[in-house]
Amino acid sequence: MLSRPDKLWTLTEADIEALEIGSAILGTGGGGNPYIGKLRARQALRSGNTLSVIKMQDLPDDAKVVSLGGIGAPLISFERIKEGREGLRCVRALEERLGFKADAIACEEIGGQNAMEPLITASLAGLPVVDGDGMGRAFPEMQMTTYSIYGHRSTPSVMCDPHGNVVIFDHAISEKWHERMARACVISQGGASTLASAPMSGAFVKRFSIPDSYTKAVGLGRAVMEARQRHADPIAAICEMENGRVCFTGKIKDLKRHLKGGFVTGEAIIEGFDGCNDQTAAVLIQNENLVFKRDGVVEIAVPDLIIILDIDTGNAITTEMLRYGQRVAVVALPCHPLLRTPEALEVVGPKGFGFDDIAYRPMEADDPTQGSAT
Amino acid sequence: MLSRPDKLWTLTEADIEALEIGSAILGTGGGGNPYIGKLRARQALRSGNTLSVIKMQDLPDDAKVVSLGGIGAPLISFERIKEGREGLRCVRALEERLGFKADAIACEEIGGQNAMEPLITASLAGLPVVDGDGMGRAFPEMQMTTYSIYGHRSTPSVMCDPHGNVVIFDHAISEKWHERMARACVISQGGASTLASAPMSGAFVKRFSIPDSYTKAVGLGRAVMEARQRHADPIAAICEMENGRVCFTGKIKDLKRHLKGGFVTGEAIIEGFDGCNDQTAAVLIQNENLVFKRDGVVEIAVPDLIIILDIDTGNAITTEMLRYGQRVAVVALPCHPLLRTPEALEVVGPKGFGFDDIAYRPMEADDPTQGSAT
Repeated sequence: MLSRPDKLWTLTEADIEALEIGSAILGTGGGGNPYIGKLRARQALRSGNTLSVIKMQDLPDDAKVVSLGGIGAPLISFERIKEGREGLRCVRALEERLGFKADAIACEEIGGQNAMEPLITASLAGLPVVDGDGMGRAFPEMQMTTYSIYGHRSTPSVMCDPHGNVVIFDHAISEKWHERMARACVISQGGASTLASAPMSGAFVKRFSIPDSYTKAVGLGRAVMEARQRHADPIAAICEMENGRVCFTGKIKDLKRHLKGGFVTGEAIIEGFDGCNDQTAAVLIQNENLVFKRDGVVEIAVPDLIIILDIDTGNAITTEMLRYGQRVAVVALPCHPLLRTPEALEVVGPKGFGFDDIAYRPMEADDPTQGSAT
Repeated sequence: MLSRPDKLWTLTEADIEALEIGSAILGTGGGGNPYIGKLRARQALRSGNTLSVIKMQDLPDDAKVVSLGGIGAPLISFERIKEGREGLRCVRALEERLGFKADAIACEEIGGQNAMEPLITASLAGLPVVDGDGMGRAFPEMQMTTYSIYGHRSTPSVMCDPHGNVVIFDHAISEKWHERMARACVISQGGASTLASAPMSGAFVKRFSIPDSYTKAVGLGRAVMEARQRHADPIAAICEMENGRVCFTGKIKDLKRHLKGGFVTGEAIIEGFDGCNDQTAAVLIQNENLVFKRDGVVEIAVPDLIIILDIDTGNAITTEMLRYGQRVAVVALPCHPLLRTPEALEVVGPKGFGFDDIAYRPMEADDPTQGSAT
C-alpha cells in the first residue's frame, strides 16, 4: 500500500535544489549545511533511485516507521564525506534486532542537512519518507523531537559510523540518557554518524509529527528561487509563506562564539540600519539561534524560529558562517503548535537551553515592529 | 555437565579473603582495589549463592563461555557502589541478542577488582567461573586480553550501567575500536559499568586463557596470610611461589602523577636502602606499573609484572595510593608465556604503551641482582 505510486510525491532534482535552500532556512542557524546532502541525494537520483515522500494521511495506522538522521557535529559531517550507507545499515540492524520490516522512514529534523539523510536512506531501502519531521526546524539534541516529547521511547536504536562500527542503544532509562550515551559514542567514532530510532506506528506519526515538513521546506526554497528570478525580495517571500516577520535589519558588529560542552555558544551583535537605526540587536546562539533581543529586551525566543539571512540574497547564514560586517536581516517564523504545549516547552523552550530567566511568549502575541521594519 | 559438583571448586569466605590479597598483587599497581568486590562476593555467599570455579580441562570444547568485567575508572567503582546485577543483565542481554545460553563465565582480568565481578555474576546466574583469565594480571584496555590477541572478536558485547541503561556494541571493526567506543560510552554513564563480550568456545578458552588464575591468586593470598601468621616475610613468600625476585628496596622520594587521556601516568622515584644503598629506582606508571629502571637503566618491562609492596606488611600498593616516604619493595614476577609471543608483545609490550625505545626482555634473561637484593 505504501508503494502505490499515485500516493507518493517523487522528488526531482529541482525539488532537491529547493529543499537545500528551504532546509537551511528551517535550520535557524544550525542543523548543518545541507549542501553535501544535496549532492548525495542528487547522486542517488542520477543513479536511478527514487526519492519519494508519502503524505501523513496516506500512512496506514499500523505502518512501522523508522526515524533517522545524522548525529554529531555538523561541521565534521560537512568536511568528512559519509561512506553513504550508514543509514541503511542502521535500518537493517534495527530490523534484525527487533524482528520487523520498516514500511517508511521518518525525518528527525527538517532543518539543515538532516532533511536529506532520510531521503537518501529511504531511496536505498526502496521506502518512502513521511512528509513530516520531529522538530519542524533544527534542535541540537535527540530528546528534542515531538516523537520523544509526546511519549515515543526511541530505544532500541542503532548507530552506524562510516568505518563500519555498529552500536545498539538497547535500552535507555530516559530520552536524555539516550542522547547522552549516543553523543559520547559518536564523538569516539569521529564525530559524525547516523542513528535510527525504534519504530513508531503510523498512527503515532500522524498524531505527533510536525506535518508537511518536506512540502514546506521545498516550498520555501521555491519561493526564494522564484523571488530571485523576478528580482523580488526573497526575504519577504519567506515571511509571507510562513506568517513570519523581519525583526531587524543591520550589520554584524560583534561576534562572541566559543565551544562549550560540544556546542557552539555565543552571541551575534547587530547594529541596526534602515528601519532599525539607532537600535542594537543581539541573537543568542547555542548551535541554533535561540533568542532575539532588541536593545536588551527579549522579543523572540525558542522554539519560534529565528533566522539570520543575507539581506541581499536571502540565503540563511549558519552560526559558524557569521562574520563581522555582514549585512543581515533577522527573520522570525512561528513554530508549530506541537512545540508550544507545556510539555514541549519543558524540553525545547528557553529553559530547555538553560535560559531560566526567559519566559516563552509566542511571537505573534507581541509584535512591536507592527510591520514597520519590513 | 558443567554443574557436576565434583568438578567444581566452591569458594569459601577464606578463599575470598585470600583472593583479595592475591588479586591486588596481580594488579601490578592497577586493576582497582578489590575490597568492595570482596564485600559483594562475601554478601553473595552469605545470601546462599555459590561461588564456583571450574578447571579449564573440565570445560567441554563446545561450552559457551562469556567473559566479563567492570569497565571504567577503578576509583569511581570504588567510590560509587554498583547496583549489583549489571553483570547478570549483560549476560542475559547478550544471550537474547545472539540466541544462546551461557555455560560458564570467564574472567577478563584477574588483577585487581575484576577478579571478583565474574564470580558474583556467575553466582547470580548459577554458573561456574573458568579458572583462568585474559591477562594474568591487570592491563588498562580491553584489547589487551589473550582472548583478543589470539583472535577472538569480542563483539557483539553488552554494557550495562548501574542506572539501567543497556548498550550493545554490535559490531566493531577492530578490538581497539571496541575499546574506544566502549570507553567513551562508559564515561557518559558515569565512569564505571560492566561489560560482557561475545561468547567463546570452551576449546578456545582452554587454548588461549592464562590458566589457573583463580588458583594462583587465592594461593598468593594464602601465602601472604600464612607468612604473616608465622612472622615470616610475605614478600619472600610471593617471590618463591611465582619465581619472582625483589628488584629493589627503598623509600619513595618523589612522585609524578597526572591524568592523561583518562589514565594515571607518572613515575615513582625510590631511594635505595639495605642492599640498594646509593641506588635510585624509577617505576614508570600508566595505570599499572609498566617499567622498572635502576639508576636510569631499564631492568624490567611490561608485560612482566612489577609490583610495589609495603615492605613490612607485604600489601600491594596501587598507583593512586603511593605516597612520599613509603618504605617499599619492588617485586618482579614473570608473566605467562602467552603474553611473550610477538603478537602479544605488539599489544601488551612496551610499544603497546608508547615506550617505543624500550625493547622487552624476559626478566629471567637478565638478573643483575643475582639474588643479592633478596
